[in-house]
Amino acid sequence: MAGWFKAAAWHTQLSFDPPLYAVSISPKRYTRELIDKSGAFSLNFLKFDDYKLAGFVGRTSGRDYYKGEVFDIQYDIGNKLNVPILKAAVGCYECKVVDKKQYGDHILYVGKILGIHYDSNYYEDGISPDMLLYIGNDMYTHAEGALVKFGKQEVQDILNQEKNKGD
Amino acid sequence: MAGWFKAAAWHTQLSFDPPLYAVSISPKRYTRELIDKSGAFSLNFLKFDDYKLAGFVGRTSGRDYYKGEVFDIQYDIGNKLNVPILKAAVGCYECKVVDKKQYGDHILYVGKILGIHYDSNYYEDGISPDMLLYIGNDMYTHAEGALVKFGKQEVQDILNQEKNKGD
Repeated sequence: MAGWFKAAAWHTQLSFDPPLYAVSISPKRYTRELIDKSGAFSLNFLKFDDYKLAGFVGRTSGRDYYKGEVFDIQYDIGNKLNVPILKAAVGCYECKVVDKKQYGDHILYVGKILGIHYDSNYYEDGISPDMLLYIGNDMYTHAEGALVKFGKQEVQDILNQEKNKGD
Repeated sequence: MAGWFKAAAWHTQLSFDPPLYAVSISPKRYTRELIDKSGAFSLNFLKFDDYKLAGFVGRTSGRDYYKGEVFDIQYDIGNKLNVPILKAAVGCYECKVVDKKQYGDHILYVGKILGIHYDSNYYEDGISPDMLLYIGNDMYTHAEGALVKFGKQEVQDILNQEKNKGD
C-alpha cells in the first residue's frame, strides 16, 4: 500500500545480518491496518526543513484526510516493495514485515530491509547530520552543531595513558 | 548487577502504559551475560560533553577492563533495582527485564521502567536538547540548534488554510 504516511517516534535498528529495523505503532492507528494488509512499510528519514511535514503526518489520521494531498507529498514507489519513497527524504528503507509482537499498548513491527535509498547530497562519510530529530512534545530539532569522533584509536590512547600512569 | 556499563546505539521506547523501553544487544557482548544474570538494567542518557565516556564504554568490553575505574565513573544505586544511576546522566531509567527475543544477530531486551531519574538543570518544558546523540561511525553530536514546534494547533492552522482554499 503506497501513499499513506505516518510519523513514527519509536523506532530502532535491531540487527545487522539480516538487516532488521523495527517500528512501534499503536494498534489504534490506521497505519496499523495498512501495514497488516500490505505486509510492508517504508521508513523515510527527513531533513530538518521538512519538520512541518513530519508534524502534520504525525498529528493527523489517514482515516480523516488523504495526507498526500494536503501537503502535496511527492514520492516514487520502491524497487522491491510497493511502498512510498519520499522525494524529500534524506534516506529511506523498504521493509518487508517479518515479525510483529505486542508490547504493552503498542505493536512492534519488525521489517527486513530489502531496499535502501539515499540522497548523496545529504551524506558525508556515511553521516547525515542535518536529519530531522523529534524530541517529544511536538518539538523538532536537528544536529547542526559540533561533530566529534571517539572510536577505537581514541580508546587505545586512553588505555595507553592509563598504562603509563601505572608504570 | 551495578557498575557495569555499555553504550547502546539501538534502543527505543515501546509502550506508554505500561512504560516499556527496549534495547538491542549482541549476544556476544558481556553486557548480555550481566543482564541475563541480574534481570535488570538502567538506561543512562548523557550530555554531549560526556561523549568520551560513551565512546569508551561502547568500544571496550567489561571482560577486559573494569570500565568504571578507567573513567572514574560515579554512580548511585537505583531506588527500585540494583542498577547504576550515573551521576553524569541527564536522565536515567531503571528497567526490569520483562521480555527478551532474538531478532537476527541481536537480542531485544524489553524493560519495564520502574524508576526515573533526571537532572532538572538540563530539562526545560520536558525537553533536554543538549543530550548526546550517536550518529554512527564512532561519531557523536548534539542538538544545539533550532527548536521548532509543530503540534495540534499548527496542524489545525494548515487544515483551515486548505478549507479556505476550497471555499
